[in-house]
Amino acid sequence: MASFREFRGNDGFGGEAWKALCRVRESAPLIQCITNFVSMDIMANTLLAAGASPAMVHAVEEIAEFTALSNALCVNVGTLSAEWVFAMKVAAYRANELNKPWVLDPVGVGDTKFRTESCLELIALRPAVIRGNASDIVAAIRASSALPPKGVDGTIPAIDALEAAKELARVSQSIVAVTGVVDLVTDGKRVLGVSNGVALMQQITATGCAVTALIAAFVAVHPAHSLEAAAFALALFGLAGEIGMEKSNGPGSLRVHLLDALHSLDEVTVLSRIKIAQI
Amino acid sequence: MASFREFRGNDGFGGEAWKALCRVRESAPLIQCITNFVSMDIMANTLLAAGASPAMVHAVEEIAEFTALSNALCVNVGTLSAEWVFAMKVAAYRANELNKPWVLDPVGVGDTKFRTESCLELIALRPAVIRGNASDIVAAIRASSALPPKGVDGTIPAIDALEAAKELARVSQSIVAVTGVVDLVTDGKRVLGVSNGVALMQQITATGCAVTALIAAFVAVHPAHSLEAAAFALALFGLAGEIGMEKSNGPGSLRVHLLDALHSLDEVTVLSRIKIAQI
Amino acid sequence: MASFREFRGNDGFGGEAWKALCRVRESAPLIQCITNFVSMDIMANTLLAAGASPAMVHAVEEIAEFTALSNALCVNVGTLSAEWVFAMKVAAYRANELNKPWVLDPVGVGDTKFRTESCLELIALRPAVIRGNASDIVAAIRASSALPPKGVDGTIPAIDALEAAKELARVSQSIVAVTGVVDLVTDGKRVLGVSNGVALMQQITATGCAVTALIAAFVAVHPAHSLEAAAFALALFGLAGEIGMEKSNGPGSLRVHLLDALHSLDEVTVLSRIKIAQI
Repeated sequence: MASFREFRGNDGFGGEAWKALCRVRESAPLIQCITNFVSMDIMANTLLAAGASPAMVHAVEEIAEFTALSNALCVNVGTLSAEWVFAMKVAAYRANELNKPWVLDPVGVGDTKFRTESCLELIALRPAVIRGNASDIVAAIRASSALPPKGVDGTIPAIDALEAAKELARVSQSIVAVTGVVDLVTDGKRVLGVSNGVALMQQITATGCAVTALIAAFVAVHPAHSLEAAAFALALFGLAGEIGMEKSNGPGSLRVHLLDALHSLDEVTVLSRIKIAQI
Repeated sequence: MASFREFRGNDGFGGEAWKALCRVRESAPLIQCITNFVSMDIMANTLLAAGASPAMVHAVEEIAEFTALSNALCVNVGTLSAEWVFAMKVAAYRANELNKPWVLDPVGVGDTKFRTESCLELIALRPAVIRGNASDIVAAIRASSALPPKGVDGTIPAIDALEAAKELARVSQSIVAVTGVVDLVTDGKRVLGVSNGVALMQQITATGCAVTALIAAFVAVHPAHSLEAAAFALALFGLAGEIGMEKSNGPGSLRVHLLDALHSLDEVTVLSRIKIAQI
Repeated sequence: MASFREFRGNDGFGGEAWKALCRVRESAPLIQCITNFVSMDIMANTLLAAGASPAMVHAVEEIAEFTALSNALCVNVGTLSAEWVFAMKVAAYRANELNKPWVLDPVGVGDTKFRTESCLELIALRPAVIRGNASDIVAAIRASSALPPKGVDGTIPAIDALEAAKELARVSQSIVAVTGVVDLVTDGKRVLGVSNGVALMQQITATGCAVTALIAAFVAVHPAHSLEAAAFALALFGLAGEIGMEKSNGPGSLRVHLLDALHSLDEVTVLSRIKIAQI
């Protein structure tokens, strides 16, 4: 797409990622989070470290007003219940009505019928971005489409994570980010790969949830370029993990230093160490 | 007021703050917290680091009994819902009935009608102390009084945070603490200013919530001197932030070192570094 | 018991504890946690640091399916409500039906009637292990048995924590772990004592909750030896605290370094520093 090359500019992704981070820091977008209980602390602290402003607000009595105050919405079904899923749907509907972007983290979709159905109802409300690990994204596309969860021989046929992400992006008309050793972000056609990050981040609870909220913050400041915004958030969070890892002896200290590093990211570091490539 | 000078003694506020901290450490007041989900971890850890004993208990089935066991109650509406607000009101009512102090953190009052009405109902139950940032306190007094939220020209007239705090204290008959670069604590007449703390503390989620719980702990051991108790809690928490900052590289490490410093505060440090002044 | 000596092997408890930790790391048991809001972050991070896989899932709509996916269940009543207690009972019932072990942390049993009755109903569902501090275990056996909560003179007769634990184990037919300066684990006859740990761990919120989840992970990989599994979890968590303490200046940093140490425990350290003895 021509617009993509324009967006990218001459500086490559590093320069664009840096500009996006500056925009988050300057505008401090208000991100409404309806998320699982485990993730709330690290999600709020991640948003604050990046310069955004978190607000965990889930009461249906105030969503109509509060979503209107927010710049983007982050929905995560980790510790879902019927009441919370209702609030998530109300908020997503309201965000759409107000033309505000919202992102979805379909944690554990496929694990139970209730969780799968809740996620499908949310996906039907057209999130700007869906972020999950490979098993979540594969489960989401299986549930969303005619793909059988099990083959005729009773085994689950393997699906490549990238193919699943592309297919889910086409079906849902959302950007889909599948995170792993390399993160893949796709609109169903174009694919960006992000290879920042360290494996130990997966040993810290809710880092995936936190980066989904960070994607919301970046989409809030770049709503017309959700694909790139998602890739920038993933790359910067991963880079913060790499820098934090230099001082860390395990998952406890990595959590601490990752937040410090995210707060302190500077232009030289971002330009030289962001690893995003068009695939 | 003469009684204030008596309380202050010859040692000034540093000596009184130190004595109050010693009293918290010795008596380990049990602080019942009905608070938002984001704040629970740091609030409990802040109370423990100061020597108090936290208990997050919100079920209406047990409030009548549990509030009776507690030495003070901390109510925070951050992630409110209808059920939780009901529990907050039951607990506040019960605390009053038992003559136990309770404190209120009206997070986001003014943002939505539901939140504002919930806060006003709680304020009507006479908290010993209301703690908020300037925008919360200004919103609370606007909602509590005849002050129009918007002027006839549609703009919101500026209110000085101190004037708002004084007015809210008079209307609510509570001590009001408005926190910022300088924290101000007032009963509507007298004002104490606290200038401990570092700006980076605001980049850690729920530090404001945590210090409200700490105020509850200090009011629990000094119920007849809520004004001073609130100032001591604010000053000691801010001082812990200053000391923690010496070892920190960002908000992740500041959160860690702040708790270490709060746990380790000693007499020499408190006497020499507490910054409280009558304004 | 002969089987115990067989289990113990020639290496003593250190070697068995190390093997159990290796089994957790290799099999990464999925531990469903229905726990209090304060504990969720540290509980999930503790399970991850030990190599297990946490899942906080409490919606009754999905428990039947999700408990079937899990390897063990951890129930903690800290911030209980009627809805959550119902979910806990459904999950415990389902775990029993599927012959999966579950553990109970009866936080604050005895504090209120609602809490006591909820805990008794859960104890009646036969947890594999009940873990609490001395006051919880004493309160649990008082509530479970004919022991009067108060004597005829109105005072509460002292009960030795070990006697309370043994009696509760006999009444409930569960393994009972009472944690303190020395942790005691008993099936009502045999008793293992664990003396790893440092006092400062009690100044970090929810370390007790976290170790209960760790017990669930160890019981998941050693379901036929719950007594030993509980002792191993307590000893390894305590040992991680000892190692973490070497780098810590207070409860904030201890929490960080404890998780690092748990993640990094190696065979030499475990063999040389585990302190478990048959009493």
